[in-house]
Amino acid sequence: MQKFLILLKDKSKGELTHDLLKQHVEHLQELSNTSKLFICGPLKDNEKAMQILICVTKDEAQKLVESDPFIKKRYYASYEVHEIIEANEENNWLFEDPQTKSNLLNQ
Amino acid sequence: MQKFLILLKDKSKGELTHDLLKQHVEHLQELSNTSKLFICGPLKDNEKAMQILICVTKDEAQKLVESDPFIKKRYYASYEVHEIIEANEENNWLFEDPQTKSNLLNQ
Repeated sequence: MQKFLILLKDKSKGELTHDLLKQHVEHLQELSNTSKLFICGPLKDNEKAMQILICVTKDEAQKLVESDPFIKKRYYASYEVHEIIEANEENNWLFEDPQTKSNLLNQ
Repeated sequence: MQKFLILLKDKSKGELTHDLLKQHVEHLQELSNTSKLFICGPLKDNEKAMQILICVTKDEAQKLVESDPFIKKRYYASYEVHEIIEANEENNWLFEDPQTKSNLLNQ
């Protein structure tokens, strides 16, 4: 399983209906109940929102975002999906990761 | 405590020294040891990286980012700091949050 950073962008501020909000929250609850939601929430700038989804592939993450009523109804007009290469103590902070190594200067 | 989404941008690919990587990892370990690091890692696009920091204020989050050797040495030339209004079951998915309410259409 990988984590994917989702950025929802270009919000139509002041145009949220209670019904759409309810549908979006049901979508989040479904993600949460199926252990696909790591964290989510709007940003304080009131322009964007973020989610981290736990999925097998980027394609799965993208399909989940496209099934979000906030995206289907274009309350957020655009979005980004980015795979995170998580760094932590367990993987020695990616010292041996191929992408890390590809960025090292030949010294 | 609030969570802040940090995006590190404009990476100087292929210009990472082993010494700078080590300094950056020591910075991450310090964040982790002081319970200020929720998740971090580069994105698979090899352009950006993300962190979620746990801080009292946006100013504290910004100072932590500016103390990251990757930012001090401009390995990433720019960054963004965004406060997350976290949504979850415990806060009823922000139904009663002032920002949510401010976006509701008068119906």
